[in-house]
Amino acid sequence: MSPGQLLAVLELVGVFAFALDGALTAMRAAHLDLFGVVALGVVTALGGGALRDVLLGSLPPASFSDWRYLFVATCGALVAFWGHPLLRRLSRPILLSDTAGLSLFCVTGSAIALEAGAGPGQAVLLGAVSAIGGGTLRDVLVRRVPTVLTGGLYAVPALLGATIAVAGGRLGADGLPLALAAGGSCAALRLLGLRYGWHAPRARLVPRQLDEPGGA
Amino acid sequence: MSPGQLLAVLELVGVFAFALDGALTAMRAAHLDLFGVVALGVVTALGGGALRDVLLGSLPPASFSDWRYLFVATCGALVAFWGHPLLRRLSRPILLSDTAGLSLFCVTGSAIALEAGAGPGQAVLLGAVSAIGGGTLRDVLVRRVPTVLTGGLYAVPALLGATIAVAGGRLGADGLPLALAAGGSCAALRLLGLRYGWHAPRARLVPRQLDEPGGA
Amino acid sequence: MSPGQLLAVLELVGVFAFALDGALTAMRAAHLDLFGVVALGVVTALGGGALRDVLLGSLPPASFSDWRYLFVATCGALVAFWGHPLLRRLSRPILLSDTAGLSLFCVTGSAIALEAGAGPGQAVLLGAVSAIGGGTLRDVLVRRVPTVLTGGLYAVPALLGATIAVAGGRLGADGLPLALAAGGSCAALRLLGLRYGWHAPRARLVPRQLDEPGGA
Repeated sequence: MSPGQLLAVLELVGVFAFALDGALTAMRAAHLDLFGVVALGVVTALGGGALRDVLLGSLPPASFSDWRYLFVATCGALVAFWGHPLLRRLSRPILLSDTAGLSLFCVTGSAIALEAGAGPGQAVLLGAVSAIGGGTLRDVLVRRVPTVLTGGLYAVPALLGATIAVAGGRLGADGLPLALAAGGSCAALRLLGLRYGWHAPRARLVPRQLDEPGGA
Repeated sequence: MSPGQLLAVLELVGVFAFALDGALTAMRAAHLDLFGVVALGVVTALGGGALRDVLLGSLPPASFSDWRYLFVATCGALVAFWGHPLLRRLSRPILLSDTAGLSLFCVTGSAIALEAGAGPGQAVLLGAVSAIGGGTLRDVLVRRVPTVLTGGLYAVPALLGATIAVAGGRLGADGLPLALAAGGSCAALRLLGLRYGWHAPRARLVPRQLDEPGGA
Repeated sequence: MSPGQLLAVLELVGVFAFALDGALTAMRAAHLDLFGVVALGVVTALGGGALRDVLLGSLPPASFSDWRYLFVATCGALVAFWGHPLLRRLSRPILLSDTAGLSLFCVTGSAIALEAGAGPGQAVLLGAVSAIGGGTLRDVLVRRVPTVLTGGLYAVPALLGATIAVAGGRLGADGLPLALAAGGSCAALRLLGLRYGWHAPRARLVPRQLDEPGGA
C-alpha cells in the first residue's frame, strides 16, 4: 500500500469512528430522530477535516469534493443508529470511538497539512485541529461545554500524536509503523488520562473574584 | 430577466426572509435590544451563504463584497423590529420566514455552486449548507439545539429542493419555473412535515445505556 | 517604527489582551484546568483574526503561519492562570482586557483588510469581525449568549473604531496617532456604554406573541 493510500484508508477509518461517536452522542444526549442522528454524525466526522482544509486554504475541502467521506460518515451514523443494541456489548462505545477518531485524525491531519505545503509547526497544529474540531462542533451543537475545555487530557494527546507523526516523518520513519506509534501514543495518553483522572492543575480562585460585577 | 438577475433577486429575497426570521427569534428568545436584533438578523441572513462561499473557496464571500446583501439583511431585521405588531397579523411569522429562507437558499445556493464550477453532487450539498447554515448559527448563538437536529424534516426538504434545482438544470428546465418547482417542493415538504408532525424513526434506547459512565 | 511594524505590535498586544480575557473567563465561568484555560485563551485571542483571514481568503491565516501569535496567546493565558491574584488588584480585569482586545483588533483588522486589497466598506466590516469574532467564539464555547447580542454597545464601538481607522487612513492621517484615536474612540464608547448602562431600544412585545406556537 502506498503512503497516499494508507493515509486515505486511515482518514476514512477516522471518519467512520467519529460518525459513530457523533451519532451515539445524538441518541444519548438529545434523543434525536434518524435525520438528526445522521446530521450530528456527519458534522462530527467531517467537521474537523473541513476546518483543517479551510485553514490550509485547500478548498473545497476534501470532504466535499470526494464522495467517499460523506458515504462513510453516513454509514457510520446508520451503524450507530441501528446497531446500538450490539454496540452496548462493547464497553463505553462513545468513549472508544471518540478516542479512535482523535488518534487517527491527529496523524492524518498533520500528514495532509505537510502534503499541502505547511511547515512542521503548522502541521502539528493543524493535525490537532483536525482531531479536535469535529468533537468540538458536536458539543456546541448539542449544547455541552466542549470536551477540549473540560475533558482532562484531550488537546494534549492530539498534539502529542501529531508531533510524533511529523517528527517521525522528518526522520524518515515508515508509513504504517509511524502511524501506529503516533496514533497509539495519542490513544494511550487519552485513555490513561481518563482511567486515572489525570488533569492539569486548576487555578485556586478567591471566591470574591467569582462574583465580580460588570465582567463583560 | 436573465438567469443571473433572477438568481440575484431570489438570493436577496432569501436574505430578507432569513433576516426577518433571525430578528424575530432574537426578540422572542432573548428579548435583545435593537443592536442585538440586527446582529442576529444579519448573521442568520448571511451566515449560510458565507459558509457556502468559504467551502467553495470563492473568497471573499459575496455577502462581504456586495453591499446589497448587508443592506437587505439590515432592512429585514429593522422591519421585524419596528413592524412586529403588524407581523403578528400573519400567522406564525417566524415559521414562514424561516421556511421561505430555506426554500430560496437551497435553490440559489446550488445554482451558485454550479456556477463556481462544483459538480452536481457537491452543488446539492452546498445548496443544503446555504439553506441550513444561517438558521444553525442563529440557534447556536441563542443557545438552542439547532433546528436541523431536532425540527422534524429540515435538512431533507433542503436536500430535496437542491436536488430538483440541480437535476432540472441538467435537463434544461427554464430558470423561473424550475426555481418555483424546487423551492416549492422544499417549502411544501417542510410545512407538511410540521403540520402532520412527521419525523423519522427514533432509536429505542435501553435506559441502562443512558447513564453509561465515562462517555467522552 | 514603520506602519507595518506598528500594525504587528498592536495586533500582538490585542492577542495578549484577548488571551488574558479568555483565560480569565475560563477560570471564572467554568473553573477549567490549565489546559482548558489555555485552550479558551488561545481561541479567544486568535479566533477573530482567523475568521477575518478566512473571509478575506488570505489563507493560511496569519495566526497559523506566524508563530508569534500562538506564543503570545499562550503567554497571555498563562499570565492569567498564574497571575490572577495580582490581576485582582486591577479592577475588573476581564472587562478591561476584553475592551483592549476589541479596540486594538478593530483598528488592526481593518488595516490588514485594506492591505489585503479589500475596499473601505469591507475593511470596516472585517475590522469589526476581527474584534468581535474571538469573544463570540469564547462565549459560544462556554455556553453564554454572546456579548455581541446582549452586552449593550459592543458591535457599535467596534464599527466606530474601524470606521475612524479606515477614514483617517484615506485622509492621510499618521499611523500611531490615528490608531490611538480610532482605538480610543472604540474603548471610550464601550466603557461609557457599560458605565451608564446605555443600550438601544428594545421592542415591546405583546405577551401573546411570546408563546406563539409552532415557531421553528
